[in-house]
Amino acid sequence: MGKKLVYFFGGGEAEGNSGMKEFLGGKGANLAEMTNLGVPVPPGFTISAEVCKIYYEKNQQYPEGLEAEIDANLEKLEKMMGKKLGDHDDPLLVSVRSGAAQSMPGMMDTILNLGINDNAVAGLAKKTGNERFGWDAYRRFIQMFSDVAMGLDLQLFEGELEKAKEAKGVELDTDLDAEDLKKLVEVYKRVYKEQQGEDFPQDPKDQMYKSINAVLGSWMNEKAIKYRKINDITGLLGTAVNVQSMVFGNFGENSGTGVAFTRDPSTGEKVFFGEFLENAQGEDVVAGIRTPKNLSYLKEINPEIYEQLFTIKDRLEQHYRDMQDIEFTIQQGNLFLLQTRNGKRTGAAAIKVAVDMVEEKMITEEESVGRVTPKQLDQLFHPRIEPSSKGKLNVLAKGLNASPGAATGQIVFTADEAEEWVKQGKKVLLVRKETSPEDIGGMHAAEGILTSTGGMTSHAAVVARGMGKPCVAGCKAAVVSGGTLQIEGTTYKEGDWMTIDGTDGEVYAGQIDLVDPQITTDLEKFLLWADDVRYKDKRKSVKEKGFGVRTNADTPGDAKKAREFGAEGIGLCRTEHMFFDVGKLEIFQEMIVAESKEARQKALDKLLPLQQKDFVGIFNAMEGLPVTVRLLDPPLHEFVPKTDEDIKELADKVGLKPESIKTMAEDLKEMNPMLGHRGCRLGITYPEIYDMQVEAIMEAACEVEKSGVKVLPEIMIPLVGTKMELKVLRENAEKVVQNVLKKNNSSLAYKIGTMIEIPRAALTANEVAEDADFFSFGTNDLTQMTLGYSRDDIGSFIAEYLDQNILPYDPFQSIDQAGVGQLITMAVEKGRATKKDLKMGICGEHGGDPSSIEFCYRNGLNYVSCSPYRVPIARLAAAQAVAADLLNE
Amino acid sequence: MGKKLVYFFGGGEAEGNSGMKEFLGGKGANLAEMTNLGVPVPPGFTISAEVCKIYYEKNQQYPEGLEAEIDANLEKLEKMMGKKLGDHDDPLLVSVRSGAAQSMPGMMDTILNLGINDNAVAGLAKKTGNERFGWDAYRRFIQMFSDVAMGLDLQLFEGELEKAKEAKGVELDTDLDAEDLKKLVEVYKRVYKEQQGEDFPQDPKDQMYKSINAVLGSWMNEKAIKYRKINDITGLLGTAVNVQSMVFGNFGENSGTGVAFTRDPSTGEKVFFGEFLENAQGEDVVAGIRTPKNLSYLKEINPEIYEQLFTIKDRLEQHYRDMQDIEFTIQQGNLFLLQTRNGKRTGAAAIKVAVDMVEEKMITEEESVGRVTPKQLDQLFHPRIEPSSKGKLNVLAKGLNASPGAATGQIVFTADEAEEWVKQGKKVLLVRKETSPEDIGGMHAAEGILTSTGGMTSHAAVVARGMGKPCVAGCKAAVVSGGTLQIEGTTYKEGDWMTIDGTDGEVYAGQIDLVDPQITTDLEKFLLWADDVRYKDKRKSVKEKGFGVRTNADTPGDAKKAREFGAEGIGLCRTEHMFFDVGKLEIFQEMIVAESKEARQKALDKLLPLQQKDFVGIFNAMEGLPVTVRLLDPPLHEFVPKTDEDIKELADKVGLKPESIKTMAEDLKEMNPMLGHRGCRLGITYPEIYDMQVEAIMEAACEVEKSGVKVLPEIMIPLVGTKMELKVLRENAEKVVQNVLKKNNSSLAYKIGTMIEIPRAALTANEVAEDADFFSFGTNDLTQMTLGYSRDDIGSFIAEYLDQNILPYDPFQSIDQAGVGQLITMAVEKGRATKKDLKMGICGEHGGDPSSIEFCYRNGLNYVSCSPYRVPIARLAAAQAVAADLLNE
Repeated sequence: MGKKLVYFFGGGEAEGNSGMKEFLGGKGANLAEMTNLGVPVPPGFTISAEVCKIYYEKNQQYPEGLEAEIDANLEKLEKMMGKKLGDHDDPLLVSVRSGAAQSMPGMMDTILNLGINDNAVAGLAKKTGNERFGWDAYRRFIQMFSDVAMGLDLQLFEGELEKAKEAKGVELDTDLDAEDLKKLVEVYKRVYKEQQGEDFPQDPKDQMYKSINAVLGSWMNEKAIKYRKINDITGLLGTAVNVQSMVFGNFGENSGTGVAFTRDPSTGEKVFFGEFLENAQGEDVVAGIRTPKNLSYLKEINPEIYEQLFTIKDRLEQHYRDMQDIEFTIQQGNLFLLQTRNGKRTGAAAIKVAVDMVEEKMITEEESVGRVTPKQLDQLFHPRIEPSSKGKLNVLAKGLNASPGAATGQIVFTADEAEEWVKQGKKVLLVRKETSPEDIGGMHAAEGILTSTGGMTSHAAVVARGMGKPCVAGCKAAVVSGGTLQIEGTTYKEGDWMTIDGTDGEVYAGQIDLVDPQITTDLEKFLLWADDVRYKDKRKSVKEKGFGVRTNADTPGDAKKAREFGAEGIGLCRTEHMFFDVGKLEIFQEMIVAESKEARQKALDKLLPLQQKDFVGIFNAMEGLPVTVRLLDPPLHEFVPKTDEDIKELADKVGLKPESIKTMAEDLKEMNPMLGHRGCRLGITYPEIYDMQVEAIMEAACEVEKSGVKVLPEIMIPLVGTKMELKVLRENAEKVVQNVLKKNNSSLAYKIGTMIEIPRAALTANEVAEDADFFSFGTNDLTQMTLGYSRDDIGSFIAEYLDQNILPYDPFQSIDQAGVGQLITMAVEKGRATKKDLKMGICGEHGGDPSSIEFCYRNGLNYVSCSPYRVPIARLAAAQAVAADLLNE
Repeated sequence: MGKKLVYFFGGGEAEGNSGMKEFLGGKGANLAEMTNLGVPVPPGFTISAEVCKIYYEKNQQYPEGLEAEIDANLEKLEKMMGKKLGDHDDPLLVSVRSGAAQSMPGMMDTILNLGINDNAVAGLAKKTGNERFGWDAYRRFIQMFSDVAMGLDLQLFEGELEKAKEAKGVELDTDLDAEDLKKLVEVYKRVYKEQQGEDFPQDPKDQMYKSINAVLGSWMNEKAIKYRKINDITGLLGTAVNVQSMVFGNFGENSGTGVAFTRDPSTGEKVFFGEFLENAQGEDVVAGIRTPKNLSYLKEINPEIYEQLFTIKDRLEQHYRDMQDIEFTIQQGNLFLLQTRNGKRTGAAAIKVAVDMVEEKMITEEESVGRVTPKQLDQLFHPRIEPSSKGKLNVLAKGLNASPGAATGQIVFTADEAEEWVKQGKKVLLVRKETSPEDIGGMHAAEGILTSTGGMTSHAAVVARGMGKPCVAGCKAAVVSGGTLQIEGTTYKEGDWMTIDGTDGEVYAGQIDLVDPQITTDLEKFLLWADDVRYKDKRKSVKEKGFGVRTNADTPGDAKKAREFGAEGIGLCRTEHMFFDVGKLEIFQEMIVAESKEARQKALDKLLPLQQKDFVGIFNAMEGLPVTVRLLDPPLHEFVPKTDEDIKELADKVGLKPESIKTMAEDLKEMNPMLGHRGCRLGITYPEIYDMQVEAIMEAACEVEKSGVKVLPEIMIPLVGTKMELKVLRENAEKVVQNVLKKNNSSLAYKIGTMIEIPRAALTANEVAEDADFFSFGTNDLTQMTLGYSRDDIGSFIAEYLDQNILPYDPFQSIDQAGVGQLITMAVEKGRATKKDLKMGICGEHGGDPSSIEFCYRNGLNYVSCSPYRVPIARLAAAQAVAADLLNE
């Protein structure tokens, strides 16, 4: 005989341990580990995953000697338990469960109560003093075995159960008594025979082997294969099989069941926290038949068991060095631990536990950084509905969780009203079919935004995320028309209170109290630890402090906020948002409709000092840190007035006929504006616009420098597709820069670079790099063009694509690594082939997405840039990327 | 002394020959060659391009010994001519010209009349008996020398010339007499001294060396460098310098000048064809002062010289083995040849000459294929304005030459009217601001299309080219509004006759007679020779007959026409055009607005037999050849009615409210339809549409097969971006295919493949190939997405981009090889890494562009596909690509 294939655990000793996950699976290794720790675990044995491997290699045959080993382990188990499978007086019942090295929840098979037969059912009744218990267990076993082990149609059994209840005129399973269930078992056995062509197996060993085969078989079911593929789980041997003696919390008095956390999973406080139910099984809790009590009740009625549990939970937490979520059962005064695992927790709890454990010297600061997921951290940066009250609320409708956080306010239907109402001291929710750039003021004023159309990347969603403003988008049940909102037949009017939760996309009627986000000292501490890890970045391509985190910010206010959150510079300052400000939009429109170069220049001359002022504010806010300013990007038609009234107003102002402005606006319209006359194409056709912007940037930089504030301007040219565009525009910009520097007698350092957002720019990055001081990947546009998805229009098919798994995730949320990512990798390589130390960053929305951040790190980018509210998340994700890399060294 | 640096030619003997282009440049080598042939050429010498190379290597110093060599050659020249530079009685005049191995017209410098000084001017006057001639030559020389050799501002001299004419109150240079010119020479010399700080050089050798330096310097002027870069001219040594004795056709009687073609450049007929002007210089012809006479006049007045010229032209044609364009001058009864080169010719002439020369056994069939450019061939496939009358026409306006050929007709402003009028037997031109898919019927009916907006790739342009219908697009001077057309203040109404020439974008008022295209037997012969060359394709990736030419055709009529033109299959059959047919559009609309899956299926069931009928026609027309059918591609909103009237009509028909159809249409609208819900995305979200189409294709194939006609259907799935899309859709299609085959008891072969038109598909072609039997590159969309240009909107900046040379050419006309081409190369490699013999073609508009065809060949594509009217051009371009490849072997 070769390798050992079956590992026993029980009686304070196990043949395996937690280091053997590869062979015993997560569950088996953990059961062994707990046993070795002296924690009372129902004994049993684990069949190694090696068996699964051989089983498939040998065309579904067991390895030699396996049955002998299983039989020996079963004998040992029966001896230890003093019970036998199928015994008439005191039968042993076991569970048969799968358990691979990586968790695959719900993917593979489990069979409970194995060992019952016509003979043992009586023993079970006798032992519990509850005849119904025995027959119910038998019924459930037949059903589960038939379904899971034999592949019979579960409906056949559920149908008979329904019939039995109908015949008796009752509704609940629990209304069937022992006699009813006894009859049902007979029916079940008949169904089994009809389907399977043989009697229901009475030999418990026969039951066991069939169940083991079922578990092994489930490794290769379609569901499991797909799950492994989607989650990229590879390199596993197969699943292990755990055969474990059953314990019952409903074995009469002095029995019970419970779940507990070693710390409070909501707050992270170090208190023993859990629930307990007397004389019950876990499924009773789930079924909601009885309400569990606080753990203190256990302490009251059984202080000894409570004390034992308390000691065990401490031991487990110390051993696993993390907060544990444990399941326990008390059978006739004996405590058994059925499971321990790292406990799920809220963002707040994750931070508290991580920081506390460092202070308790349980983990290192560096380890603590791995204990909080970016998603958990994200929860802390938005107002929330009080978690305890949330479950009791009536959800009115559900849309897309477009921008996290909750918001409550009186609904209004136009951006103007939103601003008006807020000026009057009211809190509003802006409700729109969809938003457009003209709504920005109103969106800013509102507490949150609700739209009936549009996807995760609609204007509303993107802008709201940028503002850190809660948003539920594409809420189809919400019909916005004629100044009212209708949901499921109810009409809501202007001024009605509503609440949205952008974290899960839920919409509620009425005003709901919210909990505000706070940056605690714990959080600050934690993020600095994360930064320490992040600065350990050892990549050769990065010569600076390490993998950087910048922010996308267009105003001094945003810049300040981002800096508070730890931003190390601005990676994207969009100049066009400035043009939407009151007082500037009209001048910009005047510039657009100008009928001569002179008229255009006149308008630009008026804009120059205004833009300069914007930049002064931002440079001051970002003292000493780099600020990347992108020159005008969107197509001009976005700025042109749309209503007749606005057109007339502009016409009067600039002395043109409304018709000619209308014609101009018409001419500016495009079939596919995303691929139209925008970005550097405007810079080529209207060089005077970019000249004005460059002048404003450099004049502002000189002004700020003179006041003694260090300024690091980086001028970024968008939408470059060919080297020539950048060459021409860089030459133009250099001329303006040199003029301004000379005029100010300054020699301040500046950079001129480009966005890489057109596939061709990535493909020819070696050429583009010749004229660039830096690259910034604009992954929003790069995703649109590489995949051919307009992010404004993707809503009509993305849901179907995700459902059918044609896309594994939304490529506008997380970088499509195989496609878009391939272009990024290529551009990094080609760019650095031309300029070894070319600085590269990302400023698309992906800059705030953890897996994209990891991708950027792995591909040698110098920094990521994201909206202010995601800066802390990016700092954590970046630190985790560095940590993973250091581990791989 | 090292290598020989200066090469003499003259007196029937030359030191160089036409094989020495690398050293002597094109001009120098040709002058030597002609001299050796015994053709009378004014003697001279060529300074090797090697000198230019050394000159720049040595920091603009001559190689050792050069001056001695030049002086020796000059002496030889003076001796041979019996004249001396600067001589008082009979001065020798020379020209100094550049001439590199590759022609760079107008890029480098030329100086004429060199050798005149205060002394020689008198000799010149004496010799010609024309004082004015001498002073005019001197004036011109000072001006040219100052500008070209010394870099002085030409304006300074032109200004003085103007002043002289003003002073005399005349307008033409020729109105200045000898005395005036003499004075002007004095003024010129003064200007020269003021500017240059020294007297105008009187030493002819000094003049010569300064001129030689100027020519050498012009090699590195900005213009020339740019020209070489743009035209990708590399590897040249530099320019050679030709010093050649001047001859003058205006040396009195028995003098003259002329140009001639060895065959008729318009028709290709073998007749000696040319013009002659007595006692004149070439520039007199250019200035239009005198009208040249037919060569027969020379024969009349000087039969000996004519005979001599006739013999020479035969010798030159035999020698160069191509039709020659020659320049000659007769000075005092002596004939000199100044230039011979291959003559430019019309398309018709190119074919005639190529075929005749094969029959005259002057060239081989294979050589003849290289004698016609695809562009020349293209001329033959469109009606033309009679070339002789064209120059006399008054051009009303100019637009883009969107689709070649001329058309004349009565103008109408809507597609419906176009169809209506044509039914009444009229010929119409459709004039629109821009066209849309609903105009197809009208476009088809019209003789040609004129639009006021839109670029070379606007709807009108693309569809017109597809139909082979003349089109002038984006004619900005044409204002279409309120049912009239206004051009430069004149209003044209419905029914007015106009004519357009899509070959050069010109628009004319009135009806003009056109010449119809004819496929001559010569042309047929020629194209078969081209095919013979094409089938010599030896690429390993191509196992079939060779590099194939297919067509894009949507109707049996187009298919038949393309087949006549030599198409070897259909590379793209667009099914959506079929839905625009009367009777089908309404059903298709019914399908789109269906409110349930059942209603949609009902409409599809009605469409099925109609689509099947379409396919039967096409399969029959293409008997034995493959037919690639693309499943539905455009977004659904393109099919939805737009006017209230049409909406109401549809609403009544399908029993819905007009409002709900309006809402539906509104919902279908997209911000960027090009990147929206179209192509295979429709196949995923509405699988029943693709199922219907696949069923129609396969039922049609079975029906045709049963009638004994061989059919090779290829089902093509558009807009695939991920492997999963193709996998899912292929599985769906296979199910339908198998059902149809089973039902028809058929086992006919079919293929299922995909378009590669999304950058991501190219980047992940190895994965996509797993589920594809073939790839077809959709380079229109691939260009749009790779460069981020919407072809509908590019008009607003493409002109500027081409002007500023940011783009070397329109990427929608010819593949952008560095960007889009890189993706194609990548997709070919990756696709064939997965499937070694994966069949690949191109079906974008580039399939008819010669340089793109060459690119496709070089990148291993199996075939190109283009519109029917471009099939012959593609056959030729493909043959030339193969020929070039065979030469490289």
